[in-house]
Formats: sequence, structure tokens, C-alpha cells
Amino acid sequence: MPHFIMEYSANLEGRVDMTGLCRHIRQTMMDTDAFETGAVRVRAIRCDHYAIADELPENGFIDMSLRMGAGRPEELRKEVGEAIFEAAGTYLAALFETPHFALSLEIREISPALSWKKNAMHPRLRAKEAK
Amino acid sequence: MPHFIMEYSANLEGRVDMTGLCRHIRQTMMDTDAFETGAVRVRAIRCDHYAIADELPENGFIDMSLRMGAGRPEELRKEVGEAIFEAAGTYLAALFETPHFALSLEIREISPALSWKKNAMHPRLRAKEAK
Amino acid sequence: MPHFIMEYSANLEGRVDMTGLCRHIRQTMMDTDAFETGAVRVRAIRCDHYAIADELPENGFIDMSLRMGAGRPEELRKEVGEAIFEAAGTYLAALFETPHFALSLEIREISPALSWKKNAMHPRLRAKEAK
Repeated sequence: MPHFIMEYSANLEGRVDMTGLCRHIRQTMMDTDAFETGAVRVRAIRCDHYAIADELPENGFIDMSLRMGAGRPEELRKEVGEAIFEAAGTYLAALFETPHFALSLEIREISPALSWKKNAMHPRLRAKEAK
Repeated sequence: MPHFIMEYSANLEGRVDMTGLCRHIRQTMMDTDAFETGAVRVRAIRCDHYAIADELPENGFIDMSLRMGAGRPEELRKEVGEAIFEAAGTYLAALFETPHFALSLEIREISPALSWKKNAMHPRLRAKEAK
Repeated sequence: MPHFIMEYSANLEGRVDMTGLCRHIRQTMMDTDAFETGAVRVRAIRCDHYAIADELPENGFIDMSLRMGAGRPEELRKEVGEAIFEAAGTYLAALFETPHFALSLEIREISPALSWKKNAMHPRLRAKEAK
């Protein structure tokens, strides 16, 4: 935790630096102070087949989901979501200049009772951050 | 919203026109009158690695998820799900002629309090539809 | 049902036998006696773009989700989750020897009221298992 997943239409490949977007969102998440460095996993999945809105070939989308540990105040979750959505929108401003793009974000909580994790990065990063 | 996501085993590539299936489902969703044109995003994600049932190489699956805005009556969600599941099953009838295929659909709601969206297609399509 | 989905960073390709991991998890699921053979669908999705923790190029992750039918006792869901998480961790032991890998698992339930399924494998496998 937390997991940040983007699904995007394959026609954005080459028009958007998706690794750059992943990095920008990772940094935005860190800047909220809500997450531990070693826990953040941002990724993007390309969808090669799709049908969007009125099916113009230039129609594209990025759909973002954040799954984070349960128990944080709803206010914090909203702040995190707003910060990320704004950062992504700014990064993708060029796409919004044409009437062919849609961006979305949903936050969901991960139940602690039915989740498991093992993270070999935490000891390395916690030692580093304690210095 | 709404988001329609299919995950499918890579061995269906070449046997199913996945873009055609995306289009067929998009049209079915529009025919339910439950969704606005500019909001519909149907896509499919290929899974290159898998282990299905008794692991016969011809075993395949398509697993479909619809995420839609919360607050619609459950009856409407059921009608939408039934319409889509029937349309997908008809489209995929050839696969059901052998005992190696499984199809599934789940509908989930998107919480309005923890979701964000920005859609540049809406103004274009709303203007068009108002004509 | 049940659906088992893994998302993994593309830098693990070649270092992990992902099909082998799918098979290992499928077998672990069968060994719990909680699932019917024809229903199990394990798959993995590669994420080509990502930003993980402190962004070292060797940082990698596998994030696992199990969606299973609602109504089972929570105790059973926990047992299933623990068995799978342990099996996956053992399979991936080599990755945990360096401080660059994170593994996670979440179990979610599928609502019976808003899900549909059609499985052509069940009759074949049920007939076989009844022999």
C-alpha cells in the first residue's frame, strides 16, 4: 500500500510520456506526506482494444485508481485525491486542448483484515530516512 | 464513468475480435439509455500469463467489470448487467461451443465522494446531441 | 469466480517465471479445497510503465488480488489468503534476498446480486470429477 494504477487507451502511447506521468504522480503522493517512500507503487497498463464515447479514433482516456490502507480520515483521502488529480491534469494539459480526452480517478480502501504484504524495500529506506 | 474493463487470456487473441467486442458492448451500453455518450469507456487488457481451471492449453476466459456511478436503482444496474452479459454471450457464442471457455461480469459502484473526473468530450458531444 | 489477478512491474519479466507463478498459485488455491477446478482463473498483467518507492531501476513489485464469491466465512477467506501469500512468498524467495521487492495481496468479495457468469468448463470437469 498504496497502489496507484492507471489504465490508458493505447493511442496515447507516444503522445504521453507514461513513465514520466508515473513519476510525477509518485512525487505528488510523496509531497502529500501521507505515504511512506517504500510503499508507493505507481504503474500504468496499456489497453490495446477499446471503444470510447462516439468512437472517434482520436478519443483517448486515462482512468486512475488509488488503493490505500483503510482507516485514514476521509478528509485526508480527499486531499490526496485532489492533489493527484490536479497534478495529473496539469501534466496532461495538452490533451485537454482537444475535445477527445477524459481523465478520471477513484480512491478505494484496502481492508486490513483481508490483505497481506511483505516489503523488502522498507528496511533499506527506513534506515536511510532515519539518518 | 462508466468504465467497462475486460481481462482476457492471451490465447483468445486471433480467435476473438476484441476491438469488435468492445464496440459491441459500447453499443449495448448506449442502447440501455443509462449512460451518456461521452462518458463510456470500454477496453480490454490481455493477460499473457495465466493458469485456468485444469490448465488445458485451450482453456480461455474473459472477465468483465463495469464500474458505474453510485446512486442508480439496483434494478437498473441489474438490467444493464443482464443486457451486457447477454450481448457478450451472443457475440462469443462460438467459444461456448467447446468446453473450454468461461465468461463473467461484475458491476461495482464508484463512490462520488472519492472520485474525480474531467472530460473534454462532453461539451463536444452534448452540443452535438442538442442539435 | 474466483479470479486471481497479479499486476507486476515489467522489470521482473525474465527474472520470474510468471506462468509458473500462476500455476503455483492455481495449485495452492486447489489445495485449499475452497474452489471448484473449473472456476479458477489466475492471470498476470505486466505494467510497462511504473514508478516504485525511491525509483531505483531494480525496484519491482507484484500486487495480487483475489476476488471470490461472497458469503464464505471470513475465517476461510483468511486461511485462503494466508496459504496463497505464503506460497507466493516461497516461490519468490530469491527476490526477497535484495532490498528491492514488494509483494502484496488483497481479497475482495464479488456481490452475487450484481454478477453474472457462464462457464462451459464446469460440465466437462464436473463429469470428470464425478467418475
